[in-house]
Amino acid sequence: MNKKQNNTMLCDFYELTMANGYFELGKGQEIAYFDVFFRQIPDGGGFAIAAGLEQVISYIKELEFTEEDIAFLRGKGCFSEGFLDYLAHFRFTGDIYAVPEGTPIFPNEPILTVRAPAMEAQFIETYILLALNHQSLIATKANRIVRAADGRAVAEFGSRRAQGADGASLGARAAFIGGCSSTACTISDRDYGIPATGTMAHSWVQMFDTEYEAFLAYCKLYPTNATLLVDTYNVLGSGVPNAIRAFRECGITKCGIRLDSGDIAYLTKKARKMLDEAGLTECRIVVSNSLDENIIRDIIAQGARIDAFGVGERLITAKSDPVFGGVYKLAAKEVDGKIVPKIKISENAGKITNPHFKTVYRVFDKNGMATADLLTVYDEVIDTAKPLELFDPEETWKRKTVTEYTLRPLLVPIFRDGVQVYTSPSVADIRAYCQKEVATLWEEVRRFENPHRYYVDLSQKLWGIKRELLEKRGER
Amino acid sequence: MNKKQNNTMLCDFYELTMANGYFELGKGQEIAYFDVFFRQIPDGGGFAIAAGLEQVISYIKELEFTEEDIAFLRGKGCFSEGFLDYLAHFRFTGDIYAVPEGTPIFPNEPILTVRAPAMEAQFIETYILLALNHQSLIATKANRIVRAADGRAVAEFGSRRAQGADGASLGARAAFIGGCSSTACTISDRDYGIPATGTMAHSWVQMFDTEYEAFLAYCKLYPTNATLLVDTYNVLGSGVPNAIRAFRECGITKCGIRLDSGDIAYLTKKARKMLDEAGLTECRIVVSNSLDENIIRDIIAQGARIDAFGVGERLITAKSDPVFGGVYKLAAKEVDGKIVPKIKISENAGKITNPHFKTVYRVFDKNGMATADLLTVYDEVIDTAKPLELFDPEETWKRKTVTEYTLRPLLVPIFRDGVQVYTSPSVADIRAYCQKEVATLWEEVRRFENPHRYYVDLSQKLWGIKRELLEKRGER
Repeated sequence: MNKKQNNTMLCDFYELTMANGYFELGKGQEIAYFDVFFRQIPDGGGFAIAAGLEQVISYIKELEFTEEDIAFLRGKGCFSEGFLDYLAHFRFTGDIYAVPEGTPIFPNEPILTVRAPAMEAQFIETYILLALNHQSLIATKANRIVRAADGRAVAEFGSRRAQGADGASLGARAAFIGGCSSTACTISDRDYGIPATGTMAHSWVQMFDTEYEAFLAYCKLYPTNATLLVDTYNVLGSGVPNAIRAFRECGITKCGIRLDSGDIAYLTKKARKMLDEAGLTECRIVVSNSLDENIIRDIIAQGARIDAFGVGERLITAKSDPVFGGVYKLAAKEVDGKIVPKIKISENAGKITNPHFKTVYRVFDKNGMATADLLTVYDEVIDTAKPLELFDPEETWKRKTVTEYTLRPLLVPIFRDGVQVYTSPSVADIRAYCQKEVATLWEEVRRFENPHRYYVDLSQKLWGIKRELLEKRGER
Repeated sequence: MNKKQNNTMLCDFYELTMANGYFELGKGQEIAYFDVFFRQIPDGGGFAIAAGLEQVISYIKELEFTEEDIAFLRGKGCFSEGFLDYLAHFRFTGDIYAVPEGTPIFPNEPILTVRAPAMEAQFIETYILLALNHQSLIATKANRIVRAADGRAVAEFGSRRAQGADGASLGARAAFIGGCSSTACTISDRDYGIPATGTMAHSWVQMFDTEYEAFLAYCKLYPTNATLLVDTYNVLGSGVPNAIRAFRECGITKCGIRLDSGDIAYLTKKARKMLDEAGLTECRIVVSNSLDENIIRDIIAQGARIDAFGVGERLITAKSDPVFGGVYKLAAKEVDGKIVPKIKISENAGKITNPHFKTVYRVFDKNGMATADLLTVYDEVIDTAKPLELFDPEETWKRKTVTEYTLRPLLVPIFRDGVQVYTSPSVADIRAYCQKEVATLWEEVRRFENPHRYYVDLSQKLWGIKRELLEKRGER
């Protein structure tokens, strides 16, 4: 078995001081509801892609404080023995609902909801956010890059620039969910089934006396997977001619060259011509070198001749906007078995939370296109035989009535009473689902720059509850 | 024991295809020299901070392919049985030299050098780069933020927005090396000894019927560590008054309040006045909310009354420039026991490598200030009794002669013949060393905007070798 780190102790220290407090005050078993949601789509895009749920599931199942952990926490000098004993037997006993991985998601809607005793619900905050924020960030970025590549394969290449080991391996998983075809990261293939591929670095070429010898040796070793890196010395002057010579010498026609520097648009057009003239029309041209969705769109627009992209640091760190700002906010608690909605106020209107235990529906029109998401109180019933009136929760005079629609609940049960009731699909299935779901979004929402804002609306009932809480708090 | 993931398989797949190639061609035991260096300082700063070496050491020591790994690789269908058998007994047998963690580092100088059989040296590329790139990135960013805070404590708060589990825990380690005082990340305290601290989230306040009850309960539980979060509802209208009431009720004077939203400069001035008027002059004001070095400098300049900062997403992801671009390039190989320098050419002059097995000296003037770094061929001897002539390797007419100087070699032996010969200092010692070394840099190099470019020069001999290789390659 390959050892995996247990992440139980990957929590902000305040989760423990608060949990100890709830324990000491006898509030630990009060049932609390927390929502995960985010406020802004990275890169100014029209949607994000949910990812990371499988790691949340593993985390919840594997929650365990070791004796060493308890001893370590005792040494901090601020936790009661009763609480430490509670931790020694800690497990999650609540419910979790979440949006399946690969689903397009939008600001201010719950993408995961926890219903659990306050101590448990509070404790799991940090890792849940970390897992969803990280992978949703990378899946969202990958989806942008893959859409920019317009049908050409995109390989994830960024391990060496990732922010830590999981940044590399789970980043590769998220990139695959977002639409990448493969990764360079070997451990991500072993652990998550993301196909790993790779051929050579510049050092391979330098280790031989001549570039041609290096290419010939590689072709002989890997005749079915020979993608030669042609820019160690001079792309058009030596790299491409030496590659052609090596392919011919070995009688290889299904092959490739890779460019990692220089003027990609110019060089690929020249290289394509040289390869075609040598009869190597099946030789693929792969490019890499600090690519992202903007550069890819630009060089394609310039007529670059490219079959596949390798994308590294700008994907694996989501360089242009490297934070996915998911938050974890209390939405309700139960008092005497009754759900009491809770709100967090802010001087910034956009930071006011949506209270209560909620359900999220995606509203599809008669052509199967996603029209809006609708947040309702958990037990509201919508009669889909009747027209549905949607209105903007901030600009409430904006109203729209939809007819001939279908509803799909986005949040599915993941844990019930601490028992896992959901099994993650394979990553290949998640990837295919993602592609299918993105296709249900209007072109205007998928646009890269200044996309149309997708509607995320509140039901009349939920909006009434929110307004009432706001007005009550406003009195202070 | 807490399980840690073994990162042997965290390698780009091409490391394996190349290593298999070297093995098959009988080139695997040829001795190769690789340098790690970087080309650009993040955020346009004047220097970076080296970090991550301790994780490189652990990685090298723990290198091991399990039976499952070998079976997995066999399944890829491209490796010889001889090579797989070699991997089953793989261990590192070479030498590694590196700059100690916490050292200020500059572009184009080796920060780590590997001398090893080609197969081994090639294989370890990915993880070495990942570890050094990630932690140097965060240590560099933390150092900027800590210097901006100008003596006030900076706590690292970013786990929930980190790019994976190691992004959080090792990010906290790197942030501490760069000068942070503490982290919120509990596992980083357990595993790396970074002091973890924390108090409460908004949810604590919301879990009680009133803000005052929430504050009072917390003060009673943690009378020596009560930092109350005052912005759940209304900072000046309820938060600060309720905090004052709770502190008084419990007779606490050594305490704190935290603001996580709103106009920090304005609110902290008002809050300071309210606290002082209540006699709570020792109550510290802590602020958090999407801070970085620029915002910190700006709000300090506006007279904000702040005792400590909590910095989250913009530190843990180095948001403004989230990639540290360290590369791993072949510098030489041995042929018949003789070192043959190697170069990588590029159409971009800045991407041409410095060939040969090298030593790096930091040149200090008579006042102990760092004046330049000097790269020499590994066996050059410098007579420090004589004046030293430095010249810019790109603009060679720029020359400067230094007298009364001392030299310190920056690269220290870490492994010799595969045996660890260096023990990492404690993180507290690394942090203190970092602070001391940064103080040897001229103010002009430490400047945040448009800093003076620190000199990284080549010896006359090394420059001659580089020029010769360039001219030879230019002939192609």
